[in-house]
Amino acid sequence: MKKFINAVDTILHESLDGLCEAHADILALDADYKFVRRKHPKQGKACLISGGGSGHEPLHAGFVGFGMLDAACPGQVFTSPTPDQMLAAVEGVESGAGTLFIIKNYEGDVMNFEMAAEMAPGVATVVVNDDVAVEDSLYTTGRRGVAGTLVVEKVVGAAAEEGMPLAQLKALGDRVNRATRSMGVALTSCTVPAAGKPTFAIGDGEMEFGVGIHGEPGRRRDRLKSADAIAEEICAAIVGDLKPAAGARALLFVNGFGGTPAMELYLMHHAARRVMAPHGITIARSLVGSYVTSLDMAGCSITLSLLEDDTARWWDAPVHTPALRWGM
Amino acid sequence: MKKFINAVDTILHESLDGLCEAHADILALDADYKFVRRKHPKQGKACLISGGGSGHEPLHAGFVGFGMLDAACPGQVFTSPTPDQMLAAVEGVESGAGTLFIIKNYEGDVMNFEMAAEMAPGVATVVVNDDVAVEDSLYTTGRRGVAGTLVVEKVVGAAAEEGMPLAQLKALGDRVNRATRSMGVALTSCTVPAAGKPTFAIGDGEMEFGVGIHGEPGRRRDRLKSADAIAEEICAAIVGDLKPAAGARALLFVNGFGGTPAMELYLMHHAARRVMAPHGITIARSLVGSYVTSLDMAGCSITLSLLEDDTARWWDAPVHTPALRWGM
Repeated sequence: MKKFINAVDTILHESLDGLCEAHADILALDADYKFVRRKHPKQGKACLISGGGSGHEPLHAGFVGFGMLDAACPGQVFTSPTPDQMLAAVEGVESGAGTLFIIKNYEGDVMNFEMAAEMAPGVATVVVNDDVAVEDSLYTTGRRGVAGTLVVEKVVGAAAEEGMPLAQLKALGDRVNRATRSMGVALTSCTVPAAGKPTFAIGDGEMEFGVGIHGEPGRRRDRLKSADAIAEEICAAIVGDLKPAAGARALLFVNGFGGTPAMELYLMHHAARRVMAPHGITIARSLVGSYVTSLDMAGCSITLSLLEDDTARWWDAPVHTPALRWGM
Repeated sequence: MKKFINAVDTILHESLDGLCEAHADILALDADYKFVRRKHPKQGKACLISGGGSGHEPLHAGFVGFGMLDAACPGQVFTSPTPDQMLAAVEGVESGAGTLFIIKNYEGDVMNFEMAAEMAPGVATVVVNDDVAVEDSLYTTGRRGVAGTLVVEKVVGAAAEEGMPLAQLKALGDRVNRATRSMGVALTSCTVPAAGKPTFAIGDGEMEFGVGIHGEPGRRRDRLKSADAIAEEICAAIVGDLKPAAGARALLFVNGFGGTPAMELYLMHHAARRVMAPHGITIARSLVGSYVTSLDMAGCSITLSLLEDDTARWWDAPVHTPALRWGM
């Protein structure tokens, strides 16, 4: 295992220390590392809290700040945070207008966040399940929540910043989730530090088509194909599932899994944009980068999120977090 | 070779297409792919042009925009752009106040940019050579120019945006370069697409200490050490060379080489920040991310850049480029 670490047991805390030191103007770290919160909270707004296993950085703590999350609860690598983390986060940021939990659809996350939601008053939940690759998976009943979670957090975060009440935020989160689909492909496995070896074996000329962000199996193992062929098949799967109306406007988000550089991600964006055109979809917004990663996995996912007038406006709204920053 | 590509010959153009499509609000691409320029140029300011071999994305085209570069000339992977690219870029963006070329210190880049500077009137040059690892290298006489180039481009870019005349911009660029030192370490090799195999062989338990951003040899091959030990040695080399005054304020920039995820980079930032403290250096600004990459290499570099009141202000000044964006 080749990683910049000191010891397997201390990776998470040291990485959180680094994140919060590097972004001390935006973030504050709970003394017990239970959650990362906005340094400058806005009183009276409904709070957005997300979280999940670590290893997907910058998701979620990198999206804490103005216009996005109020707090994020980091679990150990690929392991759900615990209900006491979420309860501590609620206590740390709640200011009377309620809290929305944004949860990626994995059994551990859903169970723990829902347990916390039952114990904390005034909490609503949105479960993101944007991955069209497979129904049911290693850690999931139904579809997995992957890169589309960023879109939910950004759009709902902007609406919360404007003062939208909790019940409407939940409805908005569910609507954005329904308008969002993703699928990914792995060229290499990730290596979980505690395991010390790759999660799965993959040949030199192979790819895992439809991989999950923890290295879960996808639709099939296949020989490595051209960028265009990969984009074509992912986009067909997404569009076939999403069934957008002719003339739909969308955000196209090409996400790196941690080991794939920007040069290839931009090339994939070009490929995906081109294959979307015959489907009658206008790519109105773009995002390209490694935002929802799988440790050091080489690979990427493509997310398409249909935009309406209001959601496009919230996507464009000012955001000031470590990993997404614009308009201010 | 496992990459998202269609063909080796088309990688560069397809990646540039993707970059400029995804950031169509900021960038415009020359029809012959000679340069990427600011879509909304500011008339009357001195222009900043950089460039170099591709494979280091987002450097340089990802730093074109308000408050940073006016144009960037992309060469083929790890190959200098040609003088006709730089002349076309000058013609494309120059508006009467002269042009500054910001050049990483590699023989091909220096030769080609200086050839273009002789042919274009009113061009000054700054050569960045921040890498303390080795004197002279595979493609370099003297020290290599690496991640510190971003700092020069950001600070000088902000001053140019404010209207600073060309001669002062050159002096400022030289001053920032003198205040900036970097060193990197590789855990894996990069793979140049045209070669199709790793640039160098490296064992499972080894690292290349002081590696260049094209995979050039560093100071030595060593067994892989802890993050703290790596940070300690890099920071000692940087501080020993830079010899900052007691109480100096600095920017600490931890840069990923393309295959290393954010979790490890933030951990390295935490390690580097801690080992800088006994040297009496105050980390006043931080930057963490994969900004000056070496294709898919796993590894990182640490850059320390001493800040003065004016350079800190220009670092903080608004910037709106694909890869750096704040304050607007």
